[in-house]
Amino acid sequence: MDESDTPSPICLLTDFGIADNYVGVMKGVIQSIAPGAPMIDLTHDIAPQNVSEGRFLLEKSISYFPPKTVFLCVVDPGVGTDRRGLAISGSEKFFVGPDNGLFSDRFRKSDAVVLQNPDYRLPSLSNTFHGRDLFAPTAAHLSRGLPISNLGPSCSDPIILESSVPMKNETGWIAQVQYTDHFGNLVTSFSIEEFLPQLRSGEFRVETEGGVHWPFVTTYGEVPPSERCSVFGGFASLELSLNLGNAAVETSLKTGDPVYLRKC
Amino acid sequence: MDESDTPSPICLLTDFGIADNYVGVMKGVIQSIAPGAPMIDLTHDIAPQNVSEGRFLLEKSISYFPPKTVFLCVVDPGVGTDRRGLAISGSEKFFVGPDNGLFSDRFRKSDAVVLQNPDYRLPSLSNTFHGRDLFAPTAAHLSRGLPISNLGPSCSDPIILESSVPMKNETGWIAQVQYTDHFGNLVTSFSIEEFLPQLRSGEFRVETEGGVHWPFVTTYGEVPPSERCSVFGGFASLELSLNLGNAAVETSLKTGDPVYLRKC
Amino acid sequence: MDESDTPSPICLLTDFGIADNYVGVMKGVIQSIAPGAPMIDLTHDIAPQNVSEGRFLLEKSISYFPPKTVFLCVVDPGVGTDRRGLAISGSEKFFVGPDNGLFSDRFRKSDAVVLQNPDYRLPSLSNTFHGRDLFAPTAAHLSRGLPISNLGPSCSDPIILESSVPMKNETGWIAQVQYTDHFGNLVTSFSIEEFLPQLRSGEFRVETEGGVHWPFVTTYGEVPPSERCSVFGGFASLELSLNLGNAAVETSLKTGDPVYLRKC
Repeated sequence: MDESDTPSPICLLTDFGIADNYVGVMKGVIQSIAPGAPMIDLTHDIAPQNVSEGRFLLEKSISYFPPKTVFLCVVDPGVGTDRRGLAISGSEKFFVGPDNGLFSDRFRKSDAVVLQNPDYRLPSLSNTFHGRDLFAPTAAHLSRGLPISNLGPSCSDPIILESSVPMKNETGWIAQVQYTDHFGNLVTSFSIEEFLPQLRSGEFRVETEGGVHWPFVTTYGEVPPSERCSVFGGFASLELSLNLGNAAVETSLKTGDPVYLRKC
Repeated sequence: MDESDTPSPICLLTDFGIADNYVGVMKGVIQSIAPGAPMIDLTHDIAPQNVSEGRFLLEKSISYFPPKTVFLCVVDPGVGTDRRGLAISGSEKFFVGPDNGLFSDRFRKSDAVVLQNPDYRLPSLSNTFHGRDLFAPTAAHLSRGLPISNLGPSCSDPIILESSVPMKNETGWIAQVQYTDHFGNLVTSFSIEEFLPQLRSGEFRVETEGGVHWPFVTTYGEVPPSERCSVFGGFASLELSLNLGNAAVETSLKTGDPVYLRKC
Repeated sequence: MDESDTPSPICLLTDFGIADNYVGVMKGVIQSIAPGAPMIDLTHDIAPQNVSEGRFLLEKSISYFPPKTVFLCVVDPGVGTDRRGLAISGSEKFFVGPDNGLFSDRFRKSDAVVLQNPDYRLPSLSNTFHGRDLFAPTAAHLSRGLPISNLGPSCSDPIILESSVPMKNETGWIAQVQYTDHFGNLVTSFSIEEFLPQLRSGEFRVETEGGVHWPFVTTYGEVPPSERCSVFGGFASLELSLNLGNAAVETSLKTGDPVYLRKC
């Protein structure tokens, strides 16, 4: 183990909010173990205990971070029960958090271990705050170069949740709103890789319940202010938007609602 | 004075929120004086001018930070009046902020000085923003290793506010809700050190007004979803919680309300 | 180009909020290009697409940051249209963002270039998120010491928006509320440099619509709790405030409303 280099960045994703001291205390623990480790907040505003929202934002972010980044992810409704803690190594990055499906997309071609080695946690492990007592210390040690195998035995049966993928039907495809962002954009599970050709071709149109049409455009500015459009946005997925407006507020649409590609 | 090392971490606690530029500007001032000093946000969401809430979150956080950390704490209803500014050195850490009770628990076995030396503040001291003009520069100089005695004369009469401690009565103890966290957990002043034995023994039960019972458990998962429980949480104090729910929203309880340990 | 030194600080101002992963992903991009660059959040709570609010908070902050700081500013209603991206060098600092008026006060004695060199952006430029794909990489390269002229051709016609300055009338001056802060203070465009003498002289009084008087004081504490006052605050401009209260909530005043200095 070479622990002489600068610690690698630690990227935090939680549902802790930033009003309490929870995130600050995790960062104090990290700096106590890995002084100088850069710490980047991905978000702390995951809806409380919403594992699938955490998984979505994590997956949409990983590729933008440098190699060796440690993703410290705590959305943990099962804290204090016998759910396991995991560390995962794959695609030149590390992931630390509870075994509850948050890392469902991370296990292919990855090594995963169960966090059992008591040397890499705080001396006293609470029943309610493993983010501080277990996951932050683990992430800090990985940031300093600790081999993942030191943390515990290999995990062969991590929890993997189903993916929300578009389904084909007689008139086209049906998918869901997967995430609603701060601007009110409704992000669907139609990915740019798979669905750009269909939409560019002009053979399909984007609709929500009641046949409401969201004209497909390349950028918001192609429709007048306050008008509906659909666009491949920053998440590399089709988003329903109002140009210069808030689609979530001004329509009744929300995460989970169906979105259709229908043959024109 | 040895100012050659890396500056030590500065941990910020304020009631400034993060919507304005106040916190960012304090950090600009810090980096101008102590380039590279790690800066950690403990919280900026203390209720405006609520000194006792600031004191509570500060005290619950200190032990998780590395030695030499400078806590820069600005909850400052008296800014611009003749209230003094303080720097305190104790338990291998530093504390900087207004003399208004925020540091009530910090003076035992500590050195405290009044911030009077004009060399360690911005050239122009405003009447409304000592966080930027006085406290941030002070914290930055301490982070670089300046001896605390350079900042001003010793302070022998700091403001000390009373503590909220549980009181014994004929049927047990009475305490208060001291803090309500982001998940709606109601944190009481029953500390784990003092009250774990009484609760473990089964001889006392936890109640709020009207004899409402909060069964004592080791972790949330021991009660069904949405059910009341009481648990020693991340603050090392007894918390009233709903498993997977928000106790503050779903009951009418709030900070300041009484909580009882009653003989069964 | 000397890229051997520590990267200089990058200060971020956006309207992205912190609930989504947008800011975190920009920081991942920055750390991938300029590892170890200090990153400071100025604010991410600019009202969505409100360029003039962004301009106001930027201008009120610049002087508190160290030389070579790169201000990465993204309030970008025109993203995906043909609006240009800019980098500006002036007053020993750098500014990066869209050409939409955000930098209206930055062009005097500055060099500005249009971001055209494809070497300093992500390989794939989206139509909706130039903060990540164009502006963050540009800021990271400037932080490492890249000369601004490498980024693209000189810009001779940047967009400059009008300033809101006080106007003289028969009884004194009229100005506007320019910004409402987190404490509910209503910040006007009466600057301390220009208007301190008039107010100190006692010859003018501060009024809002209906002749409501806001007594001029040096610090909040000069009036009783909940009473109106006007004071030169942290923005170096006259603010309308309630001592220990929230003027925005407790009056009906808001950004854009007129404020008068009237001859007594």
